[in-house]
Amino acid sequence: MLSPGRRWPKGGSRVTNEELLSLDIDGLATLIRLRELSPVEVTETVLGRIAELDPVLNVFIAVTAESALAAARRLEAELRSGKYRGPLHGVPIALKDIFTVKGEVITAGSKILAEWRADEDATVVKRLKEAGAVLVGRTNLHEFAMGATTENPHYGPTRNPWDPRRIPGGSSGGSAAAVAAGMGYGALGTDTGGSIRLPAALCGIVGLKPTYGRVSRKGLLPLSWSLDHVGPMTRTVKDAAYLLEVLAGADDGDPSCSRRPVEPYGALVEPMGDRPLKGVRLGVVREYFFEDLDDEIRRAVDRALAVSEDLGAEIVEVTVPWIDEAAVAQRAISQVEGFAVHERWFRSQPELYGEDVRIRLEIGEKIPGYQYVQAQRIRRMFQKAFLKVFDRCDAVVAPTNARPPCGIGEVGPEETVNNIFRLGRTPLFNLLGFPVLSVPCGKTSEGLPVGLQWVGRPFGEASLLGFAHAYEQATPWHREFAPRAVTPECLYDSLGDR
Amino acid sequence: MLSPGRRWPKGGSRVTNEELLSLDIDGLATLIRLRELSPVEVTETVLGRIAELDPVLNVFIAVTAESALAAARRLEAELRSGKYRGPLHGVPIALKDIFTVKGEVITAGSKILAEWRADEDATVVKRLKEAGAVLVGRTNLHEFAMGATTENPHYGPTRNPWDPRRIPGGSSGGSAAAVAAGMGYGALGTDTGGSIRLPAALCGIVGLKPTYGRVSRKGLLPLSWSLDHVGPMTRTVKDAAYLLEVLAGADDGDPSCSRRPVEPYGALVEPMGDRPLKGVRLGVVREYFFEDLDDEIRRAVDRALAVSEDLGAEIVEVTVPWIDEAAVAQRAISQVEGFAVHERWFRSQPELYGEDVRIRLEIGEKIPGYQYVQAQRIRRMFQKAFLKVFDRCDAVVAPTNARPPCGIGEVGPEETVNNIFRLGRTPLFNLLGFPVLSVPCGKTSEGLPVGLQWVGRPFGEASLLGFAHAYEQATPWHREFAPRAVTPECLYDSLGDR
Repeated sequence: MLSPGRRWPKGGSRVTNEELLSLDIDGLATLIRLRELSPVEVTETVLGRIAELDPVLNVFIAVTAESALAAARRLEAELRSGKYRGPLHGVPIALKDIFTVKGEVITAGSKILAEWRADEDATVVKRLKEAGAVLVGRTNLHEFAMGATTENPHYGPTRNPWDPRRIPGGSSGGSAAAVAAGMGYGALGTDTGGSIRLPAALCGIVGLKPTYGRVSRKGLLPLSWSLDHVGPMTRTVKDAAYLLEVLAGADDGDPSCSRRPVEPYGALVEPMGDRPLKGVRLGVVREYFFEDLDDEIRRAVDRALAVSEDLGAEIVEVTVPWIDEAAVAQRAISQVEGFAVHERWFRSQPELYGEDVRIRLEIGEKIPGYQYVQAQRIRRMFQKAFLKVFDRCDAVVAPTNARPPCGIGEVGPEETVNNIFRLGRTPLFNLLGFPVLSVPCGKTSEGLPVGLQWVGRPFGEASLLGFAHAYEQATPWHREFAPRAVTPECLYDSLGDR
Repeated sequence: MLSPGRRWPKGGSRVTNEELLSLDIDGLATLIRLRELSPVEVTETVLGRIAELDPVLNVFIAVTAESALAAARRLEAELRSGKYRGPLHGVPIALKDIFTVKGEVITAGSKILAEWRADEDATVVKRLKEAGAVLVGRTNLHEFAMGATTENPHYGPTRNPWDPRRIPGGSSGGSAAAVAAGMGYGALGTDTGGSIRLPAALCGIVGLKPTYGRVSRKGLLPLSWSLDHVGPMTRTVKDAAYLLEVLAGADDGDPSCSRRPVEPYGALVEPMGDRPLKGVRLGVVREYFFEDLDDEIRRAVDRALAVSEDLGAEIVEVTVPWIDEAAVAQRAISQVEGFAVHERWFRSQPELYGEDVRIRLEIGEKIPGYQYVQAQRIRRMFQKAFLKVFDRCDAVVAPTNARPPCGIGEVGPEETVNNIFRLGRTPLFNLLGFPVLSVPCGKTSEGLPVGLQWVGRPFGEASLLGFAHAYEQATPWHREFAPRAVTPECLYDSLGDR
């Protein structure tokens, strides 16, 4: 497809837009390193894609075209002078609009912060920049990351690239749609109850919620201190590994951040032969995680288990106590901590909040302290119990989404508050703090993606990425849900159907 | 006073009761080790003292005379066979009735638990037994340790040995009175807002709240998980060091317990020459800690500072932000966690609680979760700010009690709820988790003791004990408030005055 030895020929490389959209970070990085592609060319292509699709999908709150092109030019000059920063060098990345970027407004999807400028880069932003990433824009999200639909009352709803009449999931819905539609090769999200994994699943991409404390949260507007995680959203598992390697590691600015050394996650994700999951025991917890699933989702997940067995894995049925209590605890903790973050703003300007977030905060305000304390106690018991599961298996698998994405505007604000529990099987892993990867595992009859969660031991990202990569490479979904399949024509067609 | 070379002569040693009552653990241990005194003789004397004084002072909920004598006999036999366990070998110790002892009832000063038997020793009880301590009984406390007066509605009020019309302070009031009156050479207490230090100060003894996590809490009925500390109450600083050495150290049964190695605290407390505090910078925070003090208390503490300067110390005035907020936070955390502990019992049997504890729990029930979360945030900021104080000084000193003990029955249940804040300057150090020793530092015109808190860096117990020991040895208070001065006659005289 691409002839070797190119040196940024005048008039641009001969790589077509469609070819560019077929690449993941891994492939793109190779071509940039070999000077088949230039950072400026790639950035221009992505900005063009944004110009083309964003009017329909409403992915970005702000596109930072100018600074992105400036960065791309600097990074291109560096390459010319022989400096290569690594696999993110010159790669366009989108940021959920909840991380501080020096001198820029961050809205967190809210009206309240619409004027606030940060005076410092978030640690993860700093690390992305140092790694050579080109930040193309800040993506839309559920207001203050407090919900799962990304129907933002202030910046409009983000649309699902695989059916623009539907939600992309949330709260990192803009980041997921950006990566799925080729408006960025990767994106940063945050995950407090599933906000990386659920939109990743609903948009057909990979989402990684690393272990609690693996990635610094300095410069992240908090939703719920003890449940918030920062992680990458990408087209493939290997790309998630590359991003994690850059994002992870100790940070004096975040006391909750672990000092554990960072592993070379990217390099550790390698092909593993014919039966790459041979000897790997995959735990399945039926209670809650496999309950109340849409039929098509259940079939997709069952097929994924069968494929894993074909790849050599052994499926082990396991049980865990405290699941019901843990779900109640997760909700109490996130709502109480959420209100604590917003107390002042909410008391002085409640009218600036959207309706579902207002309802949610009002619930959080009323939860008594002792219930929060009991929730934290249940959490510790649940963590202890769930750790024991890993005596019997190497990873746990579970559906990410329990049903396909609902239509935009379909669900009222009351229901939106708890949508993550209806749509996702994700929130308990925030309570646990364990690492979880959501990987595409199927497609409904309407062509909507389904996600499978791969759950590992605390700080077991390296082997978890390996298992999920082996599964992904044996399945067609990352190719099927590649951005080239998203075209303005099919988007407008779908919307015309309404 | 004691002739050397005695070998437990028939008919008992020639050590008089008064001489026995003048000893601290350090002195007693020497005589036991040299076989000048036998564990059985010492235990019998202490049990006799209990029989004599407890009818007035109401210190014990249960006296375990039989098992104490059996233990003393075993320990005596061990000595005879050449085994010596260390400075607690054969030493009578009292336990606040809130630690589990295998097969025994623990009441926690409540009606609810009056029938409950523990099936395991608390870790600290196990360690005391292993060190050769003779456990003479379980002492009275404020109901569920939830108050500062030890006016127990179920087991009666404990009386202050220095004025039996007054409270001994609380919640470890029984333990303090036992040590002060010679009904034990040391005692265990617990401290959530000052429950070791305040009664120690009001009874003229030494009380040590070690660093949070220094001593295991396994087998302690919790009051407030994040504020509870276990520590020794003794007649001298050196005795506190001996006890700490036995109590401290890692415990798999308590996840909050630190794995930091235990230092030889007893051996580290040594005489230090003429100006033993030379070069030691003592921090004084005037705000809150020195505010609203009774005049006599202020004079006693001022004198203590002057004495410390004479011993070579330099007084450094320091300030700390967040003090007011921290006080509010301490209260919220202790009341919320307190209700969480009691939720089930309180809902099913509220009538079994005393009035002040019931009021307190009702307050705790209503505190919203977000306020608890804000309190924990303030706590972290306050800890960070207070740690910086130690850049400018080696220890902080502050009064323990702000006024002399009130009369028994003087204060109604509403006020009792917050008495710790009126009586003590202790609660903020629970929020901090730093180690604090209360050491007698004076006497009011009515002969009531005053306590001075010595506050150290986290896990800085060794040097803290050294400073406090130097101060103590240069002052007369540990001799003046020695148990021999407590006699049945003077107790009955005082009570006759009512």
